[in-house]
Amino acid sequence: MERFGCPGFKTAGVHAGLKKNGALDLGLIWAEQPATVAGVFTRNLVQAAPVQLTRQRTATGRCRAVIVNSKNANCCTGPGGLRDAESMTGLVARTLGLGDDEVLVASTGVIGAPMPMDKITAAVPVLCGALVADDVEALARSIMTTDTVPKAVRRRGTADGRDFTVVGVAKGAGMIRPDMATLLCFLMTDAQATADVLQTALSAGVERSLNRLTIDGDTSTNDTCLLLASGVSGTLIDTNGAREAFQRVLDEVLIDLARRLVADGEGVTKVVTVSVCGAQTDADARCIVDAVAHSPLVKTAFFGQDANWGRILAAAGRAGAKLDPERLALFFDDVQMVRDGVGCGPTAEAAATAVLKKDAFTVTLDLGLGLGRAEMLTCDFSIDYVKINADYRS
Amino acid sequence: MERFGCPGFKTAGVHAGLKKNGALDLGLIWAEQPATVAGVFTRNLVQAAPVQLTRQRTATGRCRAVIVNSKNANCCTGPGGLRDAESMTGLVARTLGLGDDEVLVASTGVIGAPMPMDKITAAVPVLCGALVADDVEALARSIMTTDTVPKAVRRRGTADGRDFTVVGVAKGAGMIRPDMATLLCFLMTDAQATADVLQTALSAGVERSLNRLTIDGDTSTNDTCLLLASGVSGTLIDTNGAREAFQRVLDEVLIDLARRLVADGEGVTKVVTVSVCGAQTDADARCIVDAVAHSPLVKTAFFGQDANWGRILAAAGRAGAKLDPERLALFFDDVQMVRDGVGCGPTAEAAATAVLKKDAFTVTLDLGLGLGRAEMLTCDFSIDYVKINADYRS
Repeated sequence: MERFGCPGFKTAGVHAGLKKNGALDLGLIWAEQPATVAGVFTRNLVQAAPVQLTRQRTATGRCRAVIVNSKNANCCTGPGGLRDAESMTGLVARTLGLGDDEVLVASTGVIGAPMPMDKITAAVPVLCGALVADDVEALARSIMTTDTVPKAVRRRGTADGRDFTVVGVAKGAGMIRPDMATLLCFLMTDAQATADVLQTALSAGVERSLNRLTIDGDTSTNDTCLLLASGVSGTLIDTNGAREAFQRVLDEVLIDLARRLVADGEGVTKVVTVSVCGAQTDADARCIVDAVAHSPLVKTAFFGQDANWGRILAAAGRAGAKLDPERLALFFDDVQMVRDGVGCGPTAEAAATAVLKKDAFTVTLDLGLGLGRAEMLTCDFSIDYVKINADYRS
Repeated sequence: MERFGCPGFKTAGVHAGLKKNGALDLGLIWAEQPATVAGVFTRNLVQAAPVQLTRQRTATGRCRAVIVNSKNANCCTGPGGLRDAESMTGLVARTLGLGDDEVLVASTGVIGAPMPMDKITAAVPVLCGALVADDVEALARSIMTTDTVPKAVRRRGTADGRDFTVVGVAKGAGMIRPDMATLLCFLMTDAQATADVLQTALSAGVERSLNRLTIDGDTSTNDTCLLLASGVSGTLIDTNGAREAFQRVLDEVLIDLARRLVADGEGVTKVVTVSVCGAQTDADARCIVDAVAHSPLVKTAFFGQDANWGRILAAAGRAGAKLDPERLALFFDDVQMVRDGVGCGPTAEAAATAVLKKDAFTVTLDLGLGLGRAEMLTCDFSIDYVKINADYRS
């Protein structure tokens, strides 16, 4: 992995003893000076304690540090769970000389088990001592659960003639659905912006990236996406032009992370873009994209490299959106498989099967009714997905 | 399998050459005298040709025969598909001396392939010659696709002091969701009833049985459930008391078939009743039952015999219904696993794990908010489900 960090921030990741085999499981982001912050959180009504605490503290628009652990979600843990989340921020605050409410916290892992606070307490001083300026890899590794590779992205941009950088790390793998930011994603920038500008940019960026991918259709209790701005580049994001430039770069980082999340989804062997066009409305298109991208029968056929287009039409037909079966056209990449709702025959099928052998491809369903369109990133449903999730807690 | 039929009907199943290895793939129901008929059909907008034809002909309330094939769904087959469906009924009509519109048709199998009419044409005379009065097994076998056992149920009842019989056969296995009757289900009774009475009874019965089960959440393009009444018992279903007695027996047949469908679902190793109570409304309860019963993470945990109650709470929390996380109680059979939203600890977990080792159990989520309740039959999500569906067309 290429080494990089984000000016104005130091990051760390250590082994606190939550994971087996010495793997990193506790991470930290520290802003050298007070940073502005924006956040997007799960819409699940069952919310982990760290989500409750961090949502509240993010509302101030400022923060100095984020502590994050994997392996334990600190969710459905009652009042004790909230106290543990507060303690985690308090430990960092005392070690780094910050106010408790300047520290945010995020957790991911098994639901319902109490946080092993003895291990966290012992590890926080080590964690704070491990902070480095120019390498987010340890942080990216510390938040991994069933992810097989760490995910970190850097992009540079220019706003009003001045440079800025956006760096993001994320973890995904399972319990992923586009209702919200996907599990944990931490973004840092050296641009300077108010919390309101950051929040608008983050919400828009998430809508185009993390909210447009699915692995298994389950929404997490712990989804947290934070964007911290150190401002040390002096590049001020305040004019319309600067905001657009910043949004473009932020979107690139988020979309790149989203693709990496799907590609590293639990048991994933195929990354598939599902695109619906020709709908009467965008809402109709989203509804059909959602049904197709979540259909277990469609996803198992992708795994089997089977151009089973009938399942795609069947999923579209049950989506609840307006559709005329006799107008449907379906493409695998640029191979047309269905015209006017009827299959194009064995030659097209052979060409489509070749497309399905690729690691990534696009399925396009044209409804032929209007200009509504929507797109989603999904994956196949494999034997390994079942194996991983049948044994997840053991 | 016990041998039985339904008075007033003969049934048959033969090998027409659609399936490999000589397995039965073409079935027939023949009413010795004109029968009244009611039907429930898929709500998928992509509907197979036989569904379109049979829905229209069922509206007359009368029929004499039903021809059904497996292995080919005759769906997304264009105008040629509708002509083939009409030809199938025409072949039966000519052989048995009936009017074309007295014959109904149903198909199940692969979407998008043209019906091999040469094989059907050659087989229909053999099929009509194979009709027997007292054994529905060949019929039940002829409609199987990935089912591993034929499903046939008989129940007897009494209405106004007179006896009647209800016999049902069904096939399921995949592409199953409780939006509608589940794939193919044919019910016969020797009771005498108007088409309106039959339709009311069938719609109510399906709502309590076939619409309350899920295997993979995909709705078929070919769902068809028909109820034919020969009337030969002379037991008239017209008084309120008789209607209730008939409904009770019909419900028993449908619920028994529903359980058999789930138990024989693709790759199923567990039959799980998901029950939600204490919701503010029944609609809220249905919404949560639906999310839990379809969650891939919940279903893979069932397969792993893992009492991963956090995933059940997480699925409930994203369902979109009113819920207070701090009031949730969760039970595996009668073992309480969660109280006030928090796990009950290792002893409860060990007892719950023992429940999950059973072939069938009930998961009950009590929201503690009101009197709303709902229930659904679901199954686990196994490695074999993925294997079966990755290779379905080959």
